[in-house]
Amino acid sequence: MEMKPMHDSRTVSTRLVLPLDINHQQTIFGGRVLAYIDEIAAITAMKHAQTAVVTASIDSVDFIEPAVVGDVLELEAIVCSTGRTSMEVFVNVHAENLLTGERKAMTQSFLTLVAMDEHKKPTPVAGVYPETEFEKHLFETATKRREDRKRKQLVAH
Amino acid sequence: MEMKPMHDSRTVSTRLVLPLDINHQQTIFGGRVLAYIDEIAAITAMKHAQTAVVTASIDSVDFIEPAVVGDVLELEAIVCSTGRTSMEVFVNVHAENLLTGERKAMTQSFLTLVAMDEHKKPTPVAGVYPETEFEKHLFETATKRREDRKRKQLVAH
Amino acid sequence: MEMKPMHDSRTVSTRLVLPLDINHQQTIFGGRVLAYIDEIAAITAMKHAQTAVVTASIDSVDFIEPAVVGDVLELEAIVCSTGRTSMEVFVNVHAENLLTGERKAMTQSFLTLVAMDEHKKPTPVAGVYPETEFEKHLFETATKRREDRKRKQLVAH
Amino acid sequence: MEMKPMHDSRTVSTRLVLPLDINHQQTIFGGRVLAYIDEIAAITAMKHAQTAVVTASIDSVDFIEPAVVGDVLELEAIVCSTGRTSMEVFVNVHAENLLTGERKAMTQSFLTLVAMDEHKKPTPVAGVYPETEFEKHLFETATKRREDRKRKQLVAH
Amino acid sequence: MEMKPMHDSRTVSTRLVLPLDINHQQTIFGGRVLAYIDEIAAITAMKHAQTAVVTASIDSVDFIEPAVVGDVLELEAIVCSTGRTSMEVFVNVHAENLLTGERKAMTQSFLTLVAMDEHKKPTPVAGVYPETEFEKHLFETATKRREDRKRKQLVAH
Amino acid sequence: MEMKPMHDSRTVSTRLVLPLDINHQQTIFGGRVLAYIDEIAAITAMKHAQTAVVTASIDSVDFIEPAVVGDVLELEAIVCSTGRTSMEVFVNVHAENLLTGERKAMTQSFLTLVAMDEHKKPTPVAGVYPETEFEKHLFETATKRREDRKRKQLVAH
Ligand SMILES: CC(C)(COP(=O)(O)OP(=O)(O)OC[C@H]1O[C@@H](n2cnc3c(N)ncnc32)[C@H](O)[C@@H]1OP(=O)(O)O)[C@@H](O)C(=O)NCCC(=O)NCCS
Ligand SMILES: CC(C)(COP(=O)(O)OP(=O)(O)OC[C@H]1O[C@@H](n2cnc3c(N)ncnc32)[C@H](O)[C@@H]1OP(=O)(O)O)[C@@H](O)C(=O)NCCC(=O)NCCS
Ligand SMILES: CC(C)(COP(=O)(O)OP(=O)(O)OC[C@H]1O[C@@H](n2cnc3c(N)ncnc32)[C@H](O)[C@@H]1OP(=O)(O)O)[C@@H](O)C(=O)NCCC(=O)NCCS
Ligand SMILES: CC(C)(COP(=O)(O)OP(=O)(O)OC[C@H]1O[C@@H](n2cnc3c(N)ncnc32)[C@H](O)[C@@H]1OP(=O)(O)O)[C@@H](O)C(=O)NCCC(=O)NCCS
Repeated sequence: MEMKPMHDSRTVSTRLVLPLDINHQQTIFGGRVLAYIDEIAAITAMKHAQTAVVTASIDSVDFIEPAVVGDVLELEAIVCSTGRTSMEVFVNVHAENLLTGERKAMTQSFLTLVAMDEHKKPTPVAGVYPETEFEKHLFETATKRREDRKRKQLVAH
Repeated sequence: MEMKPMHDSRTVSTRLVLPLDINHQQTIFGGRVLAYIDEIAAITAMKHAQTAVVTASIDSVDFIEPAVVGDVLELEAIVCSTGRTSMEVFVNVHAENLLTGERKAMTQSFLTLVAMDEHKKPTPVAGVYPETEFEKHLFETATKRREDRKRKQLVAH
Repeated sequence: MEMKPMHDSRTVSTRLVLPLDINHQQTIFGGRVLAYIDEIAAITAMKHAQTAVVTASIDSVDFIEPAVVGDVLELEAIVCSTGRTSMEVFVNVHAENLLTGERKAMTQSFLTLVAMDEHKKPTPVAGVYPETEFEKHLFETATKRREDRKRKQLVAH
Repeated sequence: MEMKPMHDSRTVSTRLVLPLDINHQQTIFGGRVLAYIDEIAAITAMKHAQTAVVTASIDSVDFIEPAVVGDVLELEAIVCSTGRTSMEVFVNVHAENLLTGERKAMTQSFLTLVAMDEHKKPTPVAGVYPETEFEKHLFETATKRREDRKRKQLVAH
Repeated sequence: MEMKPMHDSRTVSTRLVLPLDINHQQTIFGGRVLAYIDEIAAITAMKHAQTAVVTASIDSVDFIEPAVVGDVLELEAIVCSTGRTSMEVFVNVHAENLLTGERKAMTQSFLTLVAMDEHKKPTPVAGVYPETEFEKHLFETATKRREDRKRKQLVAH
Repeated sequence: MEMKPMHDSRTVSTRLVLPLDINHQQTIFGGRVLAYIDEIAAITAMKHAQTAVVTASIDSVDFIEPAVVGDVLELEAIVCSTGRTSMEVFVNVHAENLLTGERKAMTQSFLTLVAMDEHKKPTPVAGVYPETEFEKHLFETATKRREDRKRKQLVAH
């Protein structure tokens, strides 16, 4: 299968934090952010695989900064490494206060999605190659993250 | 008030068409697309004005191509001209079939949004200047669109 | 195909503006109103055509007055002219403050919807005839609106 | 307090049954219909009382006919009797299959809503008087329904 | 058909009252609570019948206490008697203020749901037998509620 | 501050997987499950702390089994250890096919939530003590999970 440049899968999405996204303290629910992260990861993985996909796992997520109603969430995602049927997607989330222009890192996350054929079985995906410095960093650290995940799974069982 | 480059307000958003966006013919509701267009226009205008905004009008919209569940909508918006308190925002929508990679123009739209101060009164905004060829085209045709809108309003009353 | 009186398609809907309809300035999103307009236009066109329909276009919309949480939106729609497979629907929106009884015109809009057969191809619709003065006005001005739309499309391409 | 004609509160709403309203058997959830009934009852009571309102009770509801995706729900509501601070609202729901034009009674319901002042305390409402035969029927049977409700409450405790 | 113990169908659900559940007076919509009641009743009946189900009726519901944003709704449901194809489900709703720990009865309701086979026809269900005192009370009072429902239907027609 | 038994915070929630929860492959979105997990974790932590809370982090989550429309998700959550102002919440998710009664482990997750006072600053919480074998296991393994989290954070920066 041919290799594709990582940036071909790059996806950007911008969301206004709305009254319906927030809890009664006026800050956005962590779960809402996680749902946005999963949605953009799925789009990114489908762009790469050109198949349906399912989310197999999400690495741990730290919520560093709260976002409030009227802020804008900027999500950016890219396929940063691949296995045989799985893709690792990096998602970076910033929150921007539109009234002050202040922009802050909100959270980052790595997810693993699996390409599925029409019989809902895992199906092979093309590989990716990095081009920029940042892409190379994501690509080269993938093996370590994969080992960490495997080790953690062993511990859990 | 200082002038800002048009592209400072440029905003991109990507949305997966979900089962809840569609009617019983499996195509997306026009109204859902209009709601997405209005949301990204508001973000774009707030980025430029750094104030709250309201939508004053949307020019006519033609829906050229349907989108179906599993397609992705790509919305791109930019402030393309300004008045004293109003901003004209151009929104361009593409639909992409992620399984085939096919990407088609879905619709385009111009909206006028007004910057509002804390007393909910219109408040002045900075001007914009274009840099690329396409930005120049949007900027230079703004006067004509404004006249068309005025004429239409006269007819209507 | 037999002709039907315009008012057979007349549809009324009333909606409470809820916290989830509003932005952080407590006024309703323009996009939410556009989605309500598209929904009632689709109902109206389906009532007339007795087929599935898609929205082909919406003419420009001016938002004259804001609505706030607790207001009620009253939407009224009617098929006001027909082509071979297309129907022009007029939608009129009022906002009523239920605490004061004050009722104000919020916006008006003309949409074109196309009747679709089971193969998702445009399919012929019955004609309409007006009965009241207001229906006659809508019916007689339809030709001019159609020409305006055609001219605009020529300009755009 | 002056008396108002019942029909001043009359409210009509039309809703397209959407994929998000239905369960996995493709029929609308009873709970969704109950939510629509409560919303139109609240609008109707607010129109009459010109205050905020809360729902105190809903009489038993029988679902006679299912509705499916693509049907239209037509809800009609009217204040049919009043107490000192409470209003009894009658809601009638029909489902219409837009492709065949077939229209069937879906359900009917009586709700009691209470007018609330700004301190969230019950506050007096104007009376109503009926004009048509059907309004008279609703008005005259109110006493019996009220007694039925009282008796049932005694039984439950 | 074998008999099942009532508690096999027992279902518990906990919901945070969110900004999108409330009206502009900051209290939860009665209709939203009714929708939650119908959802848990459907789960409970499906657990018992192991078929699809539809809601045939809901007995009258009194809303004793309001709930506000940040409260938690605790819903508990159980099949409390059966007919040939129908099941009577009891739903009990409490509201808890999480900041004070105060917990109050909010409402109770009896619903009748019908088991449906794959052709959307009513299909027989197993019987239930009570074990605890409270289950016995629910079970033994079922006949009376059934008669009340029958009488009421006669009155209405 | 007094200690509380772990099970005081125990919370159970049951959700029907609805057409609006799923992607176009008819399986539930991972993001939707994450949102449900975060909601029940917040309820559980608020029950324990009797204050507002925010989600500080969620440990990695593996999605072992898909759920489909008509399945029921059963979520169970408990505060399993505490710091000065933070609480670790364990959430266990099962999916049940109501037609077959088959019940399968779907996913498990640990989240850290922080108690917030009225000035949106972290505020101390009571400790917890375990009673059952399973609670003891969760409680005793908490230190190791905390160290894993710290180490991971060091690596990340
Ligand atoms: C993801 C899933 C398809 C994997 O199935 P499986 O039987 O383990 O399939 P395989 O062993 O062939 O593994 C397929 C790939 O998934 C990867 N994978 C499986 N479980 C994983 C996990 N928890 N984390 C990361 N990767 C995982 C495997 O490493 C393999 O990758 P590779 O082909 O690149 O080497 C299956 O677990 C599943 O359907 N889970 C539910 C997914 C879902 O519905 N998510 C949404 C919400 S629940
Ligand atoms: C938009 C609104 C604030 C304009 O109020 P106004 O009293 O006409 O204010 P002004 O006359 O000072 O006009 C302010 C600007 O809006 C522009 N404007 C007003 N109506 C407009 C329309 N229909 N289309 C385009 N621009 C419009 C004016 O040209 C002016 O622009 P400029 O300052 O750049 O020259 C007012 O009509 C409103 O609140 N509408 C409702 C907005 C809303 O709530 N939208 C969401 C859904 S309804
Ligand atoms: C609307 C649509 C079916 C028209 O297809 P087409 O190939 O142009 O079909 P036709 O040339 O046979 O035109 C059918 C009718 O639509 C009318 N029409 C087409 N484009 C139109 C437009 N932009 N504005 C108004 N009417 C339009 C034609 O005039 C014709 O009307 P008539 O039969 O009364 O004379 C097609 O453009 C489409 O599917 N668009 C997407 C619709 C959609 O999904 N909307 C929701 C959100 S995107
Ligand atoms: C969580 C938050 C309040 C911590 O703020 P802080 O300045 O680090 O506060 P402190 O240093 O006093 O830490 C408070 C507690 O949080 C814990 N904490 C902080 N970051 C954490 C993380 N990433 N994971 C786990 N625990 C964390 C600390 O260990 C401390 O616990 P302890 O009191 O039990 O020892 C802050 O990072 C925040 O507001 N994040 C956004 C939360 C949010 O809005 N989430 C929803 C979606 S974004």
